[in-house]
Amino acid sequence: MPEQVNRAPLYEALMQYMKKSDVSFHVPGHKNGQALRGGMPWEQDLLSRVMEIDATEITGTDDLHHPEGVIREAQQLAAAQFGAEETFFLVGGSTAGNLALILSVCTAPGDVLLVQRNVHKSVIHGLMLAGAHAVFLAPRLDARSGLATTPSVETVREALRRHPGAKGLLVTHPSYYGMGASLRPLAELCRAHSVPLLVDEAHGAHFGQHPALPESALAQGADGVVQSTHKMLTALTMGAMLHVQGGLLDRALLRQRLAMLQSSSPSYPIMASLDVSRSLLAAQGPALFAGGLAKAAAARSGLGKLPRFGVVKPPGASGGDAAYTIQDPFKLVIYDATNRWSGYELQRRLEAEGCVPEMSDERYVVLAFGPGTTERDAGRLLQALERIAVAAEAAESASEKAEEKATATAAQAATQLAEKREAEQDCSGAERDPSAELSTWNISLDPKPADAAIRNAEARSQTDAGIDVQVTGTLTDAEPADSGIDADQTDILPGISEPVAFSLAPLSPEEIEAIPVEDSAGRQAAEMIIPYPPGIPLLYPGETVTEETKRRLLRLRQTRAKCQGAADPLLLTIQVKKLIKKAGNEPHER
Amino acid sequence: MPEQVNRAPLYEALMQYMKKSDVSFHVPGHKNGQALRGGMPWEQDLLSRVMEIDATEITGTDDLHHPEGVIREAQQLAAAQFGAEETFFLVGGSTAGNLALILSVCTAPGDVLLVQRNVHKSVIHGLMLAGAHAVFLAPRLDARSGLATTPSVETVREALRRHPGAKGLLVTHPSYYGMGASLRPLAELCRAHSVPLLVDEAHGAHFGQHPALPESALAQGADGVVQSTHKMLTALTMGAMLHVQGGLLDRALLRQRLAMLQSSSPSYPIMASLDVSRSLLAAQGPALFAGGLAKAAAARSGLGKLPRFGVVKPPGASGGDAAYTIQDPFKLVIYDATNRWSGYELQRRLEAEGCVPEMSDERYVVLAFGPGTTERDAGRLLQALERIAVAAEAAESASEKAEEKATATAAQAATQLAEKREAEQDCSGAERDPSAELSTWNISLDPKPADAAIRNAEARSQTDAGIDVQVTGTLTDAEPADSGIDADQTDILPGISEPVAFSLAPLSPEEIEAIPVEDSAGRQAAEMIIPYPPGIPLLYPGETVTEETKRRLLRLRQTRAKCQGAADPLLLTIQVKKLIKKAGNEPHER
Repeated sequence: MPEQVNRAPLYEALMQYMKKSDVSFHVPGHKNGQALRGGMPWEQDLLSRVMEIDATEITGTDDLHHPEGVIREAQQLAAAQFGAEETFFLVGGSTAGNLALILSVCTAPGDVLLVQRNVHKSVIHGLMLAGAHAVFLAPRLDARSGLATTPSVETVREALRRHPGAKGLLVTHPSYYGMGASLRPLAELCRAHSVPLLVDEAHGAHFGQHPALPESALAQGADGVVQSTHKMLTALTMGAMLHVQGGLLDRALLRQRLAMLQSSSPSYPIMASLDVSRSLLAAQGPALFAGGLAKAAAARSGLGKLPRFGVVKPPGASGGDAAYTIQDPFKLVIYDATNRWSGYELQRRLEAEGCVPEMSDERYVVLAFGPGTTERDAGRLLQALERIAVAAEAAESASEKAEEKATATAAQAATQLAEKREAEQDCSGAERDPSAELSTWNISLDPKPADAAIRNAEARSQTDAGIDVQVTGTLTDAEPADSGIDADQTDILPGISEPVAFSLAPLSPEEIEAIPVEDSAGRQAAEMIIPYPPGIPLLYPGETVTEETKRRLLRLRQTRAKCQGAADPLLLTIQVKKLIKKAGNEPHER
Repeated sequence: MPEQVNRAPLYEALMQYMKKSDVSFHVPGHKNGQALRGGMPWEQDLLSRVMEIDATEITGTDDLHHPEGVIREAQQLAAAQFGAEETFFLVGGSTAGNLALILSVCTAPGDVLLVQRNVHKSVIHGLMLAGAHAVFLAPRLDARSGLATTPSVETVREALRRHPGAKGLLVTHPSYYGMGASLRPLAELCRAHSVPLLVDEAHGAHFGQHPALPESALAQGADGVVQSTHKMLTALTMGAMLHVQGGLLDRALLRQRLAMLQSSSPSYPIMASLDVSRSLLAAQGPALFAGGLAKAAAARSGLGKLPRFGVVKPPGASGGDAAYTIQDPFKLVIYDATNRWSGYELQRRLEAEGCVPEMSDERYVVLAFGPGTTERDAGRLLQALERIAVAAEAAESASEKAEEKATATAAQAATQLAEKREAEQDCSGAERDPSAELSTWNISLDPKPADAAIRNAEARSQTDAGIDVQVTGTLTDAEPADSGIDADQTDILPGISEPVAFSLAPLSPEEIEAIPVEDSAGRQAAEMIIPYPPGIPLLYPGETVTEETKRRLLRLRQTRAKCQGAADPLLLTIQVKKLIKKAGNEPHER
């Protein structure tokens, strides 16, 4: 461990590499950018410039998969900064970290993992690669916003009781909306059962780095934590970290899994940006966030003067095990308090004003602030929101009818496009929700019908492979004051699922049939059913339909709930795996 | 398809993104580099500058996993340029492409894949993730150099006869040394059996782009081809492409596998560098390579005047199915013609002269030229080699004895360090061989014994997991004119192995035992045995020791062959999986 924690050993090694004018007779082929210089438009110097440090494993630059020099040192400095015993730099994003964690705890097909029901698709992909069996745990829902956080202690305790052999518990914290609740009770439960707590903290890399920021998952006792350093800190995209502490994870196996899943030619600029992000924290400490926090606070108070918009915040001092007690101050979740606009429509209007949100759903728009947010940025946001509010109110008062009609049409159009997109592709809780952009994308670019057809074909095959995941918590048109979520969440989601078997085997259309929901109990779902609210999968492909789930499906049909991705949106039928006769003519699931 | 093929639609979209001064309330957290500017040493502007185009999926930047805009257009232009029906941009290097290809053809555990015995470790990792059974095919060896190319038509024909249900054939072409033979006969065989030919063309992204360059794998009829655009073309490291043609590969499934294995937040600079690399080819055509080819030719002729050094080249006009008929002109493979220096020693001397080779082994040094290689670069190489030769010959004539002693010691030291490193970690044919750098690295940095201990521990666990792969073909001290390789390769390598089962299940030390080689027939190896020459795994962990293999092991013991990575270098014993008693007391492999 070096004395000066604000050094950036890996980045400095690359600076040395750049200054040393050795001749490259090795890869990469751009030869430190030489191949792109001259004859190219000036812009391409942007790439050729960074190519000066796009090095490879040569003397002095170490080796990510066997670090013993500057990368090892940089990782040790990161471990110290983030409070881990050991930190692994990731060049494949949090995706690589989630896959490696799952493959290191679930080493045999059929191993059981307790998994929060609303997770990033990379978690589902990890389960598929591991051939693991997932026991899905219902997240808690904030009654006012209808948005989800982590499962309750009771749910986890019961799941551990039912599955004492479970290999671990995996939760997402904070949510894409920056929301959460204390992980300490879950960490204590896991410790008591000697089961590792794995946390997808992709959106919380900055947690614990300033008194005003929530506590980090590691500080709360998690065993393995994945952070997207590029999301809320300052690394290049795909730059992430996997932090480990305690003795419950096999680190040698974890190293091997990372070497399996990540490129054997990792990107040095991305690794260096991880080193620089960490050294920024070390050099500036909490001061790094002071500015951004002030801007976020200013935006919040500014919004207070704009009655048109509401801001999602925790209900306030509740029990220690309340669903929603933590809000990332850098994530501003806003909505149209008049219920005229969907989140998509509000995002469209913000983008028209030059302010690009992180994502939106049917109700909310998420705005991500950060260390890089300037005074000017925050100012532009408030001016934009004010202009949007004033213009809308003027128009509304001018001709209420016309405006309402127009708004309805616009909102409807946006929603329809969003539904189309969501029905067609993966969405993700720990990732930008493409439907948000698409609602504007389509409006602005009008894709050819052919594309839609292709996307449909893709989507079908992906659904068959069982990886369509919709994990954002959303609302339709309910007041945030009354989200329409029954406080008794078990009324909406099964608390604890039976083990759901995941595998890499693709499902062919011949293996699937649509049957009346009335007859679905006991059958294995072959599609994902995601009712809104709360926008969390009620059924994963491969999940057995219980009597309880069947009743929920029938109730959803009665209440005409929206079920994105469902082959039959009216929920008269559901896609299940066909039964095949085996010797003895006893039907069973194939 | 746009008119101007020399456009770079993705890169241009990022230029628009950069010029448009929208405010970012989305990830990445560096906010287009704002977070890194000011207060940081100037060097860090290298990163903050490229962050201006480190975008994410917002309106206009498309989505790698569901491309319908600029990424789709860029991939279509790439497909046209490289002669594919469909091209997928890879941000996880050729590693991601090899994994996805294997997981898309081997969809059920136990699926059989025909695999060239010397492959990049990512292929072995793909087999593990797929739970596939690999039938290993011996590569052909060039008798003069002892270096390996692809399996013979006879080998492939026989393998297809024995395994008609094989899901595909995977070969590496060209080798890390730029060597190869025509793939057409293999492609025809595969077509005749309706089995896809998968080619790891990581080192041949430039093939087919200039009359003086070898034909590409696609042009020869391969179905799926992985190219490291960053290696011999000009993309950023981790930028690679997966090309597909024909109807034998399930492209929807391939897309899904790529979405599983690659980051859901792919790097835009890396994707843009793929687009720019392709647009360079389109804009300049063969002219892009003229300069680099001239420099490589100049280096070759210059070497002709330096008798101290030999250059590996094809034996010349042989039969169409000769082992070694193709040499990448950009790869210069040289050696000390006096046999005094190992490749490691020659690389050390070249680096001391400021010329950094691609890699070296016990005999050879590989020098990679490219479009980015300048007149000055080639000149420095020849001057360096001349200085090295002159200095050495002077010293040698001055005091033959002393010099020989010193040389021996130096070479020995380098070789020992290299062996240590190779025994401790993955090596790879399609990747830089870290042992090359390590031989100098250790000399210069002297790692603490502790590190070595840790590395040993890692290496053990990795060997247990069965992923230690040594795949470069090398020689010890034989004349290139006589490599010591029996032309009848079956004398060295089994032509076709029994199916070897791969899985993710780690082997614990309790499951392994060392037994005399004499008793090893019928047992499953638990370690990798890599005799030199030819430096290709004779046994993979999990591979059953046949009577034939046992005889080879005994012969290797007699001839005191070097077996890197072997737990018992003398080959008195071999590590195998323990037999466990099952009901009925009939022993079987666990």
